[in-house]
Amino acid sequence: MDPVSVIRKKRDGEVLSRKEINFFIDGIGNGTLPDYQAAAFLMATYIRGMNADETRWLTEAMLNSGEVVDLSGVKGFTCDKHSTGGVGDKITMIIAPMAAALGLKVPMYSGKGLGHTGGTIDKLDAITGFRTTLDTDAFVRSLNDIGIANSMQTETIAPADKRLYALRDVTATVDSIPLITGSIMSKKLACGADGLVLDVKFGNGAFMKTEKEARELASWLISMAPIRNIRVSALIDNMDDPLGYMVGNALEMMEVIEVLKGKPVIDLVEISIAIVGEMLQLSGETGDVEKMAKEVLANGRALAKFREWVAYNEGDATIIDDFSRFPQATSRMEIALGQAGYVSKIHAKIIGEAAVYSGAGRLAKEDTLDYGAGIELHVRRGDWIEVGDSVATLYYSKSRRNPDEIAQLIRGAFQLSEKSVPPLKRIVSTIRQ
Amino acid sequence: MDPVSVIRKKRDGEVLSRKEINFFIDGIGNGTLPDYQAAAFLMATYIRGMNADETRWLTEAMLNSGEVVDLSGVKGFTCDKHSTGGVGDKITMIIAPMAAALGLKVPMYSGKGLGHTGGTIDKLDAITGFRTTLDTDAFVRSLNDIGIANSMQTETIAPADKRLYALRDVTATVDSIPLITGSIMSKKLACGADGLVLDVKFGNGAFMKTEKEARELASWLISMAPIRNIRVSALIDNMDDPLGYMVGNALEMMEVIEVLKGKPVIDLVEISIAIVGEMLQLSGETGDVEKMAKEVLANGRALAKFREWVAYNEGDATIIDDFSRFPQATSRMEIALGQAGYVSKIHAKIIGEAAVYSGAGRLAKEDTLDYGAGIELHVRRGDWIEVGDSVATLYYSKSRRNPDEIAQLIRGAFQLSEKSVPPLKRIVSTIRQ
Repeated sequence: MDPVSVIRKKRDGEVLSRKEINFFIDGIGNGTLPDYQAAAFLMATYIRGMNADETRWLTEAMLNSGEVVDLSGVKGFTCDKHSTGGVGDKITMIIAPMAAALGLKVPMYSGKGLGHTGGTIDKLDAITGFRTTLDTDAFVRSLNDIGIANSMQTETIAPADKRLYALRDVTATVDSIPLITGSIMSKKLACGADGLVLDVKFGNGAFMKTEKEARELASWLISMAPIRNIRVSALIDNMDDPLGYMVGNALEMMEVIEVLKGKPVIDLVEISIAIVGEMLQLSGETGDVEKMAKEVLANGRALAKFREWVAYNEGDATIIDDFSRFPQATSRMEIALGQAGYVSKIHAKIIGEAAVYSGAGRLAKEDTLDYGAGIELHVRRGDWIEVGDSVATLYYSKSRRNPDEIAQLIRGAFQLSEKSVPPLKRIVSTIRQ
Repeated sequence: MDPVSVIRKKRDGEVLSRKEINFFIDGIGNGTLPDYQAAAFLMATYIRGMNADETRWLTEAMLNSGEVVDLSGVKGFTCDKHSTGGVGDKITMIIAPMAAALGLKVPMYSGKGLGHTGGTIDKLDAITGFRTTLDTDAFVRSLNDIGIANSMQTETIAPADKRLYALRDVTATVDSIPLITGSIMSKKLACGADGLVLDVKFGNGAFMKTEKEARELASWLISMAPIRNIRVSALIDNMDDPLGYMVGNALEMMEVIEVLKGKPVIDLVEISIAIVGEMLQLSGETGDVEKMAKEVLANGRALAKFREWVAYNEGDATIIDDFSRFPQATSRMEIALGQAGYVSKIHAKIIGEAAVYSGAGRLAKEDTLDYGAGIELHVRRGDWIEVGDSVATLYYSKSRRNPDEIAQLIRGAFQLSEKSVPPLKRIVSTIRQ
């Protein structure tokens, strides 16, 4: 077998065998195949697609290119959560303490952010001292001790995905169902959890632009579950507008804490309850899971678990009661629009990009972050605004672009309507195995 | 403009603009774009194709990525010849002295061979001392002095093609009409001749498998002529069986000399006369061009020109009358078949591969050649053979594979028939501008 014959076969729209996919992905994972052959394979796969068998073999091969985390030492049901990426998406930090307070074990291997969607690790890094790297022993111990463990995804997990993922962005092969499926599920299956709730987003701030595409992707992702016999559910939700009001690392952590303290940021609360409910269901819970999720948020046990989580990881837990201890931007700018109306849309991708320019995100891998930078929205879809009302605050210190330009970008994200507009419906459906 | 957006557009089957193609090919030529983006572009182009405009812009951009040779100092009509590559194809060395003896100027920039089709430079290198690199001044001088100039193609000609060509083989993007057209015509147009005769081959030993594909490629190649306002014709000919009897560098040069001395190797003579006739027509000759071509071969003037050519380039011209002065293989093996019959096919690609294994060709760029190695066929399609007749001689010194294996490969190239078989019809048509 040789790599050119595998590329040729996919180029011609033929179905690859398990052996061929294994051979090619092995070569990607162990570094014997060059980037240009990987790129040709990615493009051929993007255009010609893969059937269910091929996608499963691809996912398996990528999974097997690295280590599979052994969580057999964890007592209880381990349930992971994965979001396909959104703007202002801080749901992980809300659901982890909620689920752990309800007795689930929540293992989280996360990455840093690149581009308009932020990374979980970056958000946790906004808490001074918070430890974001654990070896497997410490990871298992953390799960047994507090019900949560979080760590940077290690180099040993799905190295084939690591190489392909880095190439997809620069070869225009990102939004391909088999490639996305292989990438997400190889990593998630390698993390060794018993269950997984997927948060599959669609809209302008997400990879998938339409609900139909998101549902299709969700079905593909779920169909990989048998590879390691895990239980998987997926929420399909709308990412046209940013999630919550805060975009930026410290800002988002403050909003997480406010929600855990009881602030009714409706979309964050709604999605968090739905996800924790799904996690409970996957664990075999037969009671009223939604009620359980609501209660743990209302009765402060989720907040207490969050405090425990921060302290366990040597983070500065006093930050929870004193937001002034978070990294702060040195400058702020209030942003108003030149007209009045109902907010009919806040373009998530533009807000995400503006946040990157403020210093909250990375344009290139090697960029350093300003944890205090970001955007606070003061309104959401459906709200009425007058001319001159501040619709957002831009926080920045040394921004990546001129602040006036960023402000202009933010203004352009707002669409107004003369007629009243209903709030954005976030969760449109749930897909189960 | 950015490379990813160009790749994306072609990926989605859209038509690229001249500006986009220029931008991308410039980046390939000057080395700012990485191989993996070139590979993704090649695969997208392979699968989605290019229309006539795009192919013209691609060819232009590749041409403009490097130097265009200035032949304005040459007196007379300069006419180039290009073969899409065959097994035993030594036509260039026959037609160059024929055409030059008839007053045409024959500029030849050639390459080394890789794989089953040999390179012109390798064949000339089989003549001791023969100089195969000339700078532009010496090239022009050679054309004015003897009517022929030959040189290794320089690094400065179409560097964008150089990079893409090297990648196509290893990314399964070789047999694409727009990519082949861009590659061949960018180089040929850069060589600055007034006319060009293309020898477009089809069959098992060629890139194009069918006559229809060869005709299509020829039409595309010819349609690039207006880019530099040159005159182009194409012969379409069959490459199912090797050309002539000899395959291997010194062996082929011996056969060239024998044909120039009057040996009636029918397919070599037929194609050479047709090509020289086309060259004369392109130059504006209105007489009986076929007759002129036949005469120059019959009256010894082509042989005299060949002698002049070798001497001018400091090659050992005594070789012409004493073949023992050619590099010789140390061993030879006669190959017979286990049955009798009419030869109905001699699979050209297999013979070409066997010649590579004998040491006559390269498996990898860095391989060194054994100029004396190769295969001499003793029969051709239509001939009757008895059991035990030697159908071929394998010449080798240190072969790349076990000689018995190579012999077995050669045996497998022969197909026999109980019924009589007509000789292979080589030239099937001529396509003119």
